[in-house]
This record gives sequence, C-alpha cells and structure tokens, in this order.
Amino acid sequence: MKLLDEVKFNSDGLVPAIAQDATTNEVLMMAWMNKESLRATIETSRATYWSRSRQKLWVKGEESGNFQEVQSVHLDCDADVVLLKVHQVGGAACHTGHRTCFYREIVNSGENFKESGDFLFDPKKVYNK
Amino acid sequence: MKLLDEVKFNSDGLVPAIAQDATTNEVLMMAWMNKESLRATIETSRATYWSRSRQKLWVKGEESGNFQEVQSVHLDCDADVVLLKVHQVGGAACHTGHRTCFYREIVNSGENFKESGDFLFDPKKVYNK
Repeated sequence: MKLLDEVKFNSDGLVPAIAQDATTNEVLMMAWMNKESLRATIETSRATYWSRSRQKLWVKGEESGNFQEVQSVHLDCDADVVLLKVHQVGGAACHTGHRTCFYREIVNSGENFKESGDFLFDPKKVYNK
Repeated sequence: MKLLDEVKFNSDGLVPAIAQDATTNEVLMMAWMNKESLRATIETSRATYWSRSRQKLWVKGEESGNFQEVQSVHLDCDADVVLLKVHQVGGAACHTGHRTCFYREIVNSGENFKESGDFLFDPKKVYNK
C-alpha cells in the first residue's frame, strides 16, 4: 500500500477524513485517521477512524450498526486531507441521530443556530445511554 | 456574534473548515480557520481562512480571483468542524486548476492514484509562477 507513505500525517500522526454520502453528496461528518486506520479503511472498505478521545481505532458503526461502506477514497492536492465517499448504513452518520453532523446552520449574522436535516434515530435507544 | 464562543478551536486556535459547492455538493477543499477568519467569513460572505504556511488571514481567491461566495455556514455536533456551502467563482477551488482539491482517487488497494474531475485553468497563467 505504497500510497500511505505519501499521506502527510500531522505531528500527532493524524489526518482529517471527511465522509460524504456517495449518492446524495451530503457531507456527513469529519473525523481523524492515523496510518493504521487509513490502511484498514482501504483494506476492509469500512470507514475506520482514530478516536482521539478513546485513543483507539474506531470502526464507525461498531456500536450503532451504522457502518459506512466505502465506495472511494480520495486525497487532496496537499496530501493532508482524506475524503471518503460512503454508503451510510442506516442513513444517519451523527451520534445525535441526525443524518449529518452538520445539522446546525449559523444564521442571523452569527447569533443563532437553525437546525435542519433529517433526524433518523433516537440515540437513547441505539446507544443504551 | 455570540456563536463564535461556542466553537471549539484547537490548541492552535484553529478549526477545520470544509468548503462544499452549494449547487453540485462537491467537496471542494478543506482549510483552517481561526476565530477572526470565521468572523470575517460570516460578516463578508466570502470564505476567509487562516493560512498556516503564511500565518495570516487568507481570503480565498484574493490572488486568483476565484473567490468563494458563502451561501451558508454550518457547525458540526461537536462544534469543532465548520462546513461552508459556497458558490465557487471561476468554478475551480484548487490551486492546481482542478475544480476540487480531491481530484486524486486512491485505487488498486492503495497502490495507485486515478485522477478525475475537471481541470479548469492553467495555474502558471493565474499565479504568474
């Protein structure tokens, strides 16, 4: 997997990874990858990130079942950002139950949020919290 | 602009900012913003980033003319990633002349790149380099 050596991981060994719905082109989320998680993503075609809070590999959906089946992996011109085009199992990427993590729009010159987008599951039921 | 206080800038005072074409939904690029650049983006409706290499505010397109007219600004669930939906003046966001910075797809199990996407200008002519 020689292209992994071209990726410019930051001083923490990470790159931002953007997940985009391959069908609708909605931006679903952004998380972080180290080299091991990028390799696993390419090998398994399941989006695998590095959880900075838990300091471990994180197969997206391992708890909720909402896996991301990777259709293609892209690298930007500077080789320091990854873009995944995915099929989002269950339809929702966000742990809040929204389809996308970017469900809050900043409106009114930065004074308020407007929520938008589909709300697809109740996180209390999915995560048993 | 009270929402600026809710954004979780990292230890360098920055958040990743993803620019997405508001019409086609293509992901064009990812760059970084500090609080001042996010405020300027909201105030002027022109995407304004923080250039880490030049350590200064960077109005996207100030040199090439390819400004990004901001249609909406979104914040993710963790308040540490910004998503801009933009009209990309000139059609091309990437300094290489491609429409999107993510014009390289990783293929063949990580062994090769496949280039795709539109190539819209010759950077030698635009940047006088």
